[in-house]
Amino acid sequence: MTELRKDIFTGRWVIVDRQAAIQPSDFDFGPFTSKPGPCDFCEGHESATPPELYAARPRETSANAPGWTVRIVPNVRPRLRVEGSLDRRAEGFHDLMNGIGAHEIVVETPRHDRSLHQLDPSAIAAVLQAWGTRITDLRRDDRIRHVLIFKNHGAEAGARVSSHSISHLMGLPVTPRTVKAKLTVARDYFTEKERCVYCDVLRQELEDGRRLIAANHLFVALAPFASRFPFEMMILPKRHAAEFATLEGEGHDALARLVQDVLRKLDRAVPGVPYNLALHNSPRRRHKEGYWTTLEDDFHWHLEILPQLWPIAGFEWASGFFYNPTPPEAAARRLAEAGSP
Amino acid sequence: MTELRKDIFTGRWVIVDRQAAIQPSDFDFGPFTSKPGPCDFCEGHESATPPELYAARPRETSANAPGWTVRIVPNVRPRLRVEGSLDRRAEGFHDLMNGIGAHEIVVETPRHDRSLHQLDPSAIAAVLQAWGTRITDLRRDDRIRHVLIFKNHGAEAGARVSSHSISHLMGLPVTPRTVKAKLTVARDYFTEKERCVYCDVLRQELEDGRRLIAANHLFVALAPFASRFPFEMMILPKRHAAEFATLEGEGHDALARLVQDVLRKLDRAVPGVPYNLALHNSPRRRHKEGYWTTLEDDFHWHLEILPQLWPIAGFEWASGFFYNPTPPEAAARRLAEAGSP
Repeated sequence: MTELRKDIFTGRWVIVDRQAAIQPSDFDFGPFTSKPGPCDFCEGHESATPPELYAARPRETSANAPGWTVRIVPNVRPRLRVEGSLDRRAEGFHDLMNGIGAHEIVVETPRHDRSLHQLDPSAIAAVLQAWGTRITDLRRDDRIRHVLIFKNHGAEAGARVSSHSISHLMGLPVTPRTVKAKLTVARDYFTEKERCVYCDVLRQELEDGRRLIAANHLFVALAPFASRFPFEMMILPKRHAAEFATLEGEGHDALARLVQDVLRKLDRAVPGVPYNLALHNSPRRRHKEGYWTTLEDDFHWHLEILPQLWPIAGFEWASGFFYNPTPPEAAARRLAEAGSP
Repeated sequence: MTELRKDIFTGRWVIVDRQAAIQPSDFDFGPFTSKPGPCDFCEGHESATPPELYAARPRETSANAPGWTVRIVPNVRPRLRVEGSLDRRAEGFHDLMNGIGAHEIVVETPRHDRSLHQLDPSAIAAVLQAWGTRITDLRRDDRIRHVLIFKNHGAEAGARVSSHSISHLMGLPVTPRTVKAKLTVARDYFTEKERCVYCDVLRQELEDGRRLIAANHLFVALAPFASRFPFEMMILPKRHAAEFATLEGEGHDALARLVQDVLRKLDRAVPGVPYNLALHNSPRRRHKEGYWTTLEDDFHWHLEILPQLWPIAGFEWASGFFYNPTPPEAAARRLAEAGSP
């Protein structure tokens, strides 16, 4: 079991695992070699995982059997568990609650030897569709405040269990700090100007052009002005949208093509680069006509792609400041020129 | 030259280096091997660095010559430069300023083959004294809002240039987010209760005892209740003090003994563990009787020691939340039992 503990000095939440990794051998902080397949996420190994929560598979195939293209299963080592109650409580000055929530694994492909950028746009679109479906489903659980979706590609970016292409989906009982910071800025901006800050910046970036990486009729990929990481990318819908899960057919297809394009550009510019990907979506905020809705004018969902090329060190931990040796304008030019599919 | 850029969506500052690291060979994201000595920081190589800003050395020795125990020099590849003006400006919606400030290297020992925890308490006390002297000195520069001191031990914690034991000292023209968050919490708590939140928590932790690692008559080392990292440690003065630089003789000696003790405990518990160390000090805030002072009732300086045993991944980047596989109570017990000098 895990506990959610709040740091009184900063307001930051931490998931503390009571399993107690404590021996030096419990950690592996040296060079890491990924294991060859097949693994528990491979097609034909469906019985090695808990029963599937979702699968994109032809009707003639059976659940938990081969034939799927995307499969979502509960994490066997979940950081948060669905069963139980939060039991929010104090321990003197300290705040804590039980580690309740959801932790699911989105298996993005049946093949062990394919990374996300090596999939066809239609296979990537199926992953995006799966994310949206599970977000909508997890929103029904009143204990869950925010659904977080992220991906670790490469051991240096945290993919230590398997090199099989997966993403993580977590339903959190608190709104995370980073999400809260973004929401607050966007809400304050909207309150003052009655405009979305993401829409405003996007318009400026499209006119300026120096930080544009790629675009299609629905989405734009750009290098953020204050990129923390070399080759950092942000993908936004061109038209204002607070909620990722409202995306459908053509939206999934267009986003899948852009995601494939920019991940391939990244891999051409810096071959084999490890990266993290995260979906920043509007958390559930309003109860309306019997179900929770998140449609707000003051947030604009986006994807962040964070290449891990540069060590995070004392400077970043001590300050929350970042040092980036690669100007976003130079990164955008390099990525834009790295060809398209 | 560098630029300080502000992310409009979060308020986070980033130092962007215009030198443009862009080739894959500019980065090294694979396994890292540290170079053997001697290096530019070793005794006898003084001419390889810019002239010293500070040195603890006997009177009969000359500046920039052998004989020193601690030596502070400007960083040859500074992230912020002393020369020039900030020139705060806008680029449409974006905020930026020149990368002005200070970036100094504290060479903690003349010997290449000694880590901080392998030094005598008197040598560690000399490092602490050096920090305090430079903090006081940098505070005289009106452009500098906060002096940050941190240390990267081991390649995985970001020590990539040399394995020589050094710490970094940076004078920043903005108050960093992490520092601001701590100050705000402490100020709000003080406003409400007229007590210091660190003093209150410290009293509770001393009574509770489960998270205590070591202590002497002036300082305490504990595992924070919401530790982000396995074996994370926090060192605080027992008596309320906002400002590290007010520490003198006996204070330096007592802190040096505790720092040596807990770093040795850490190295015994998890041999060779990489870590980051950071000083969280009160920033300069009030102009009083002709000079800037930081003496406030609502902050309590402390050191953080953050072992890097566990990968930071998409979860942390997407949420600002942390996952820690080692409960602080278990870590504290293990560290406390790891013997003392």
